[in-house]
Amino acid sequence: MDSKSLKDILNKVAQGEITADEAVNHIKIQPYVDLGYAKADTHRSLRQGVCEVIYGQGKTAEQICSIVNTLMDNGEKTVLITRLDREKAEIIGGEIHIIYDEISRTAVAGEKPDITGKGKIVVACAGTSDLYCAEEAAITAEALGNEVVRLYDVGVAGIHRLMDKTDIIMQAKAIVAVAGMEGALASVIGGLASCPVIAVPTSVGYGASFGGLSALLAMLNSCASNVSVVNIDNGFSAGYIASIINHQE
Amino acid sequence: MDSKSLKDILNKVAQGEITADEAVNHIKIQPYVDLGYAKADTHRSLRQGVCEVIYGQGKTAEQICSIVNTLMDNGEKTVLITRLDREKAEIIGGEIHIIYDEISRTAVAGEKPDITGKGKIVVACAGTSDLYCAEEAAITAEALGNEVVRLYDVGVAGIHRLMDKTDIIMQAKAIVAVAGMEGALASVIGGLASCPVIAVPTSVGYGASFGGLSALLAMLNSCASNVSVVNIDNGFSAGYIASIINHQE
Amino acid sequence: MDSKSLKDILNKVAQGEITADEAVNHIKIQPYVDLGYAKADTHRSLRQGVCEVIYGQGKTAEQICSIVNTLMDNGEKTVLITRLDREKAEIIGGEIHIIYDEISRTAVAGEKPDITGKGKIVVACAGTSDLYCAEEAAITAEALGNEVVRLYDVGVAGIHRLMDKTDIIMQAKAIVAVAGMEGALASVIGGLASCPVIAVPTSVGYGASFGGLSALLAMLNSCASNVSVVNIDNGFSAGYIASIINHQE
Amino acid sequence: MDSKSLKDILNKVAQGEITADEAVNHIKIQPYVDLGYAKADTHRSLRQGVCEVIYGQGKTAEQICSIVNTLMDNGEKTVLITRLDREKAEIIGGEIHIIYDEISRTAVAGEKPDITGKGKIVVACAGTSDLYCAEEAAITAEALGNEVVRLYDVGVAGIHRLMDKTDIIMQAKAIVAVAGMEGALASVIGGLASCPVIAVPTSVGYGASFGGLSALLAMLNSCASNVSVVNIDNGFSAGYIASIINHQE
Amino acid sequence: MDSKSLKDILNKVAQGEITADEAVNHIKIQPYVDLGYAKADTHRSLRQGVCEVIYGQGKTAEQICSIVNTLMDNGEKTVLITRLDREKAEIIGGEIHIIYDEISRTAVAGEKPDITGKGKIVVACAGTSDLYCAEEAAITAEALGNEVVRLYDVGVAGIHRLMDKTDIIMQAKAIVAVAGMEGALASVIGGLASCPVIAVPTSVGYGASFGGLSALLAMLNSCASNVSVVNIDNGFSAGYIASIINHQE
Amino acid sequence: MDSKSLKDILNKVAQGEITADEAVNHIKIQPYVDLGYAKADTHRSLRQGVCEVIYGQGKTAEQICSIVNTLMDNGEKTVLITRLDREKAEIIGGEIHIIYDEISRTAVAGEKPDITGKGKIVVACAGTSDLYCAEEAAITAEALGNEVVRLYDVGVAGIHRLMDKTDIIMQAKAIVAVAGMEGALASVIGGLASCPVIAVPTSVGYGASFGGLSALLAMLNSCASNVSVVNIDNGFSAGYIASIINHQE
Amino acid sequence: MDSKSLKDILNKVAQGEITADEAVNHIKIQPYVDLGYAKADTHRSLRQGVCEVIYGQGKTAEQICSIVNTLMDNGEKTVLITRLDREKAEIIGGEIHIIYDEISRTAVAGEKPDITGKGKIVVACAGTSDLYCAEEAAITAEALGNEVVRLYDVGVAGIHRLMDKTDIIMQAKAIVAVAGMEGALASVIGGLASCPVIAVPTSVGYGASFGGLSALLAMLNSCASNVSVVNIDNGFSAGYIASIINHQE
Amino acid sequence: MDSKSLKDILNKVAQGEITADEAVNHIKIQPYVDLGYAKADTHRSLRQGVCEVIYGQGKTAEQICSIVNTLMDNGEKTVLITRLDREKAEIIGGEIHIIYDEISRTAVAGEKPDITGKGKIVVACAGTSDLYCAEEAAITAEALGNEVVRLYDVGVAGIHRLMDKTDIIMQAKAIVAVAGMEGALASVIGGLASCPVIAVPTSVGYGASFGGLSALLAMLNSCASNVSVVNIDNGFSAGYIASIINHQE
Repeated sequence: MDSKSLKDILNKVAQGEITADEAVNHIKIQPYVDLGYAKADTHRSLRQGVCEVIYGQGKTAEQICSIVNTLMDNGEKTVLITRLDREKAEIIGGEIHIIYDEISRTAVAGEKPDITGKGKIVVACAGTSDLYCAEEAAITAEALGNEVVRLYDVGVAGIHRLMDKTDIIMQAKAIVAVAGMEGALASVIGGLASCPVIAVPTSVGYGASFGGLSALLAMLNSCASNVSVVNIDNGFSAGYIASIINHQE
Repeated sequence: MDSKSLKDILNKVAQGEITADEAVNHIKIQPYVDLGYAKADTHRSLRQGVCEVIYGQGKTAEQICSIVNTLMDNGEKTVLITRLDREKAEIIGGEIHIIYDEISRTAVAGEKPDITGKGKIVVACAGTSDLYCAEEAAITAEALGNEVVRLYDVGVAGIHRLMDKTDIIMQAKAIVAVAGMEGALASVIGGLASCPVIAVPTSVGYGASFGGLSALLAMLNSCASNVSVVNIDNGFSAGYIASIINHQE
Repeated sequence: MDSKSLKDILNKVAQGEITADEAVNHIKIQPYVDLGYAKADTHRSLRQGVCEVIYGQGKTAEQICSIVNTLMDNGEKTVLITRLDREKAEIIGGEIHIIYDEISRTAVAGEKPDITGKGKIVVACAGTSDLYCAEEAAITAEALGNEVVRLYDVGVAGIHRLMDKTDIIMQAKAIVAVAGMEGALASVIGGLASCPVIAVPTSVGYGASFGGLSALLAMLNSCASNVSVVNIDNGFSAGYIASIINHQE
Repeated sequence: MDSKSLKDILNKVAQGEITADEAVNHIKIQPYVDLGYAKADTHRSLRQGVCEVIYGQGKTAEQICSIVNTLMDNGEKTVLITRLDREKAEIIGGEIHIIYDEISRTAVAGEKPDITGKGKIVVACAGTSDLYCAEEAAITAEALGNEVVRLYDVGVAGIHRLMDKTDIIMQAKAIVAVAGMEGALASVIGGLASCPVIAVPTSVGYGASFGGLSALLAMLNSCASNVSVVNIDNGFSAGYIASIINHQE
Repeated sequence: MDSKSLKDILNKVAQGEITADEAVNHIKIQPYVDLGYAKADTHRSLRQGVCEVIYGQGKTAEQICSIVNTLMDNGEKTVLITRLDREKAEIIGGEIHIIYDEISRTAVAGEKPDITGKGKIVVACAGTSDLYCAEEAAITAEALGNEVVRLYDVGVAGIHRLMDKTDIIMQAKAIVAVAGMEGALASVIGGLASCPVIAVPTSVGYGASFGGLSALLAMLNSCASNVSVVNIDNGFSAGYIASIINHQE
Repeated sequence: MDSKSLKDILNKVAQGEITADEAVNHIKIQPYVDLGYAKADTHRSLRQGVCEVIYGQGKTAEQICSIVNTLMDNGEKTVLITRLDREKAEIIGGEIHIIYDEISRTAVAGEKPDITGKGKIVVACAGTSDLYCAEEAAITAEALGNEVVRLYDVGVAGIHRLMDKTDIIMQAKAIVAVAGMEGALASVIGGLASCPVIAVPTSVGYGASFGGLSALLAMLNSCASNVSVVNIDNGFSAGYIASIINHQE
Repeated sequence: MDSKSLKDILNKVAQGEITADEAVNHIKIQPYVDLGYAKADTHRSLRQGVCEVIYGQGKTAEQICSIVNTLMDNGEKTVLITRLDREKAEIIGGEIHIIYDEISRTAVAGEKPDITGKGKIVVACAGTSDLYCAEEAAITAEALGNEVVRLYDVGVAGIHRLMDKTDIIMQAKAIVAVAGMEGALASVIGGLASCPVIAVPTSVGYGASFGGLSALLAMLNSCASNVSVVNIDNGFSAGYIASIINHQE
Repeated sequence: MDSKSLKDILNKVAQGEITADEAVNHIKIQPYVDLGYAKADTHRSLRQGVCEVIYGQGKTAEQICSIVNTLMDNGEKTVLITRLDREKAEIIGGEIHIIYDEISRTAVAGEKPDITGKGKIVVACAGTSDLYCAEEAAITAEALGNEVVRLYDVGVAGIHRLMDKTDIIMQAKAIVAVAGMEGALASVIGGLASCPVIAVPTSVGYGASFGGLSALLAMLNSCASNVSVVNIDNGFSAGYIASIINHQE
């Protein structure tokens, strides 16, 4: 249930189509549906303004199907599933129509949403090995109704590739900067951009990258003041935050 | 030089008051003024849409005065100085009119700006010992033209205090959540809010807080998807990012 | 041998059924039985007031069977086996009657004990992926004679789910709070509860969760004073300590 | 306001001395008193069953005096102040009667409470350099109405000193084990005791003690199952938890 | 070539059986034999007083065979091979007579040496899961000519088991203390013993044991002054050092 | 009380000068003298074969004087005091005759002992900045009756300085290798020596030396098998262990 | 395109064979070729003076083939492929002529280059288990036109093996020092050499080597001033830097 | 004694001015002069091709004077002293002519050397707070006979400042890149340059910069292959290595 659905209900109340009590029942009585193994929070789209997302890891294909169905029965049009490996995706795809992306291990169930964001979200990444995470961010942002511009393979050791894209960077409403190893991309983009930059360290690298710790620390220490950081490999949150910013009224 | 000043120049061109070449000279020839010890970047407000900020630590009072004067001579109306200890503030205050806040160690030179942000920014913190950092965020946001609502002493171990403020949290355009120790405030607020939450870990605590590392890690691992994180004690960046979000058109 | 068995022996002495020397022999001569690969400590239930527990990891199914039999021959009625994978459980189940729980990888041999605890122990966890650890705590507490109330999927990003259960939390004699990622659950529950809260960080998460370190640090820094912490994934010790508290006279 | 005060109010209702509404006003209307810089939570003793405690660090002597007075005006008989340095203690002592302990940097305002705990709490520490933390735990437990037995200088490298005290350890209702360096004391006491052991790592040591990290990790890895751990140098929480356990009915 | 072999050569010189120059050729010309992939150091037994040891990990079975043969051709009577997995051991055993121990993954080629150490070496460990490392130390010490007393399963949480062995500990010439988790065994034994204690942390444990780091730090911080530490799981060096101490003249 | 004093008592028993019961009283009744703030363990020299040592840090000059006097009244001839700063040393020196070394911050009270060790102990260090720790080891070893050879400023970056001293290294009974920064000295000396090498990392260095962690890890990973390690800056334990080895019979 | 090719073009301009505009088109218009999944940077050899290198990990065999062909079509004569596992190497070898080295997992496509370096590059490593990394450095240097001298198995615990090679070390133009565990090799070689030493820590070791961290820290703390460090296991960069130094004019 | 002095001696031999034996005496007999507290290595300039450098920290002003005099008496013309605080510099300056730089805390004694390096060394740093370290590198390089170009305040968040200097970067023979916080400068410069880049992380920053660890890790993970790294704040080694590269023949 999103804000618009809620206003519809309230309008019906205003127009006498349903009573206030009936409205309350629609809204408040079942803030979440208890599925036993997980409380599907059907109110969250109201509280947070977005469609529901399912974190696929650690859930069985059956559990995911059940949650998707419950959400759609409660009015969601689009459900995003993240961290979904291929085996589960195939099982789920046998029951529900989903579009699965293997690189980012995400799936979208239901209709592709209209573009409701006000501007463009840029998703940039340093190298081809960061694609899994950049695509998670990009697909998340698209599933939440945003137009996404992808800038891939613009690592700072070939700074001219990035400089060529200055226009795109300066016009973005929000930018997701994905990088492993030394994570310098976020700072350079942060210095070029006037919008918020959400930095995502990746676990790509070896040796002293320590599973993404190196990029994480570098991004946290960015000398560009418009950079904030999410967890290592957390492309989803980055795309999600970019979408909220792009939908601010 | 901010976007508006730039448009003024361009309008003068359009109206034949100055030639295009003269305009270019105004804009491009001197992207930064070289003061010897630091290049004052008079173009950044154009590129990033905000007034200039000076990081006070490691600069002498004389250097700070010089930079402030250069910036104001180039048209800045408000200059924010962060990490400024009392001794330097007193020296600077003898030469330039500043408003100094001792808790957050910030000073504002020039006029207080009009409120140009579209909504309210909430700055929340867990305890009185986090005030230094929360105020840095709040004063930064105010210096950048935002209305700020302060929610202080709403730590999660007394969760009812926070729950009393749910309305304020749900109506914010951006929230800065400041906490040391276990850093749980960001997650709880993230779950209640529909806007982006910028989390600031503080170095408050002892023992296994390891100078803010504990809060930092907790915030990076937040189960709320709208939370991103800046460096330990970096109230400035949090207020800055919140301001950009609150000014998105 | 538990305290009650010891008193029985002493009563027999008091009633002249056995001599003091015979009693001493029963009690002191064989404080532990040497099985070669591990000294089964048949006196620990006397010293620590609980039935015996076997840490299954690193022991063969044969060794575990042998220890269980030795303990039961010495009078234990219930033996709990933790960290027992399915393969070993099936081998052991072929020789001894056990009840095996696959999620928590625990087994109980012998009779299910009477409920001897004075009140209720609450086991709470943040998400479905923490179940393995929460169930280890819950089954341990049950095996030690306690009534357990399970509060699962009450993570802090959906704080209203937790607030709905305030009554249950306030009436508990001891609470086990299980959480990975940011580990904030312990602090929020600690603030609501008047009994001791034993926090268990789990290794659930990715990136900067660093195998549970993030949750561990957050819990150690809890601003709620009634929270103490056990090792990452150590549901057993948490359930064990909760049981001791619930049995205090 | 503690549970007993609450029952008194409810009894007055039952006996017609005050109306239910008046009772509600007493209890619910002012869950906390807003002092501006800190919300003094006058309800916490109801929710958590103990008198109020003030964390002195980061507060001025004036703020502490104000909070103490507010609490006592709301009916608290004893207020414990921790992390209070000598300078502030002298200022506060000029206004309010307090008993100050310099080693642990704690002060007690108001009356010394009656002993209401059911048994004895043992506070053990490894060396004289751990006294500051052990005394914080001991004074806390005493301020909360417990009889405390101190076992100091019983480090594991002189194990016979500890073994001499086995009787005291076995009869305790709760034990606080304080140790720096290798932190082994908690495990050895845990093995001897049948009650919960709250371990407190101290920052005592040098080199690879890393400010208490070494002792913290050792205690978290204790092979004794009745050991839980609080933050480095957090004697207060340990004494507090021991007190709750010793007051369980 | 060990010291005795060297003296034999020198005696032959003294008795005119070979010339000094011939002796020098025997001794100095070929300080190591180049096998291409590894220089087998046939002089080390002279410089360090012990027979040769081969670190098996990362070498093929064929390489190990070749090195063993080279060493034996140069006069070694006993060769110890460590970190040797079962597959390689079986291949080697097909060519050379070895005694293989699967728990410690060590093999001994050649004759079992006479006991030349002056006293007894005690190898103690905390639990059955530490056996792999304790046996590596014990077999190493035996291969180097020492009598070894094994004290296994004497963890500190059951301190009476260890106290029962005080006599053995007090009479040792050198002690190897092997423990994972909290690593407290080294300190307790150090306090009871008058000889050097070589502590070996093991990687046994989970969660906050961090692969042996916890035990390592605890042992380095031992309050017993006769404790020194070797690398995690390095039973070999511990047995080796104990042997040198036991052979000091 | 050392082994010899004990034998004297037992001889008196054998010769009828005192009864067995009187002897027992001498020996066992008072295993430690309770000074209130610290139990002076007058039995340790019996159990561990060396004179008593006082860790000066955290003790007042008065406490140290009192402990020294107690120990000497019980028959100790030499007492070593470590980690003693100059101020305390001057106070103590006013009451008791001590020899104070400012570099290592150690003092020796009582007579300088006879040399009872069988061979020479070598103390080597890498640079002049490591002297404080090397001297702590050397003075400790001398106070325990050993002849000490000092090899200072033999860092591995000037390997020829160290190679010049090969003879001294090869003839030592035990070697203490003190180094900060990369800690390589221990491995190189370990490869040259046939006796045990006790490595002491120092906190000397900056940046990535992390207070001695770098040297500590390097020493623990030494490829020389005769190297064991003590805590950062723990020259005392190294000298102590070297002395035990040099006194092995 | 390397510097020489560029000069050829410029010479043609000078000799009127092509126009300046045609030259510019050759050089600047296509600074990189967009292959979709990765921008093959055909200009880098101009900017950095070396042939192209492909980091094989995370790329499919097909992608690698495509990049190699693109580069060669643009004039590269030699292409080095690193981190290439055997399976991919076999697929690639089916399409393009490569020389594959399994130990270092590197392949060279195209012609072996002439030796253009001015002197010799020494690659030294401590043990046979470091060969994989040393060979990556050596083959890289050879592929870039250098003569390489290999000094393998010269670990510091057998310092005489290294001292035998002092001449070779003193005559090198650049040295790559590869070592795991305590990483001391870099310091010792640094002290003997007059040229730059590029140190490569390897992940070889166990326990407290922490995947190469121990060697990394040791090398960063080297007391030899001519030592700089690259990432753990990064033999490629070390060989690459050594080659640049050996080609300096 | 540098290579040239040595050749002079050898030429004198060739010309019969001195005998070979006399030459040997000059060269080999006194490889270092023993000053008691430190062996001044008068041969190192021969072995490593540079003048002598004294690490001032931990040495007294008197010791430094003595070493400088010894070196100059043995023929050094220039002596560089690093890590020299102002107090000592003033004392030394009273006895020997030195040029002291307070920002970098370095002093140069003797003549300023001729420029013997073949090209230019660029020293770049990110911000004014990194100057102390950049100047240490620059002054070192100048003292060793190099021409140095300083590029200060070229941090990556204002990338256009750095891009303006591309020509200077591309023409350098060696570059020292100094940066704290996220350390991204090294990668960006590495990508632009064709010469070796020696990266120096600084301890500048706060919070998650962890004293330079963040910049250190970022630099080690640089995606530019020509970057190697020295210790945090080690400007000296960076300048020293750059000088060796610039002097390669």
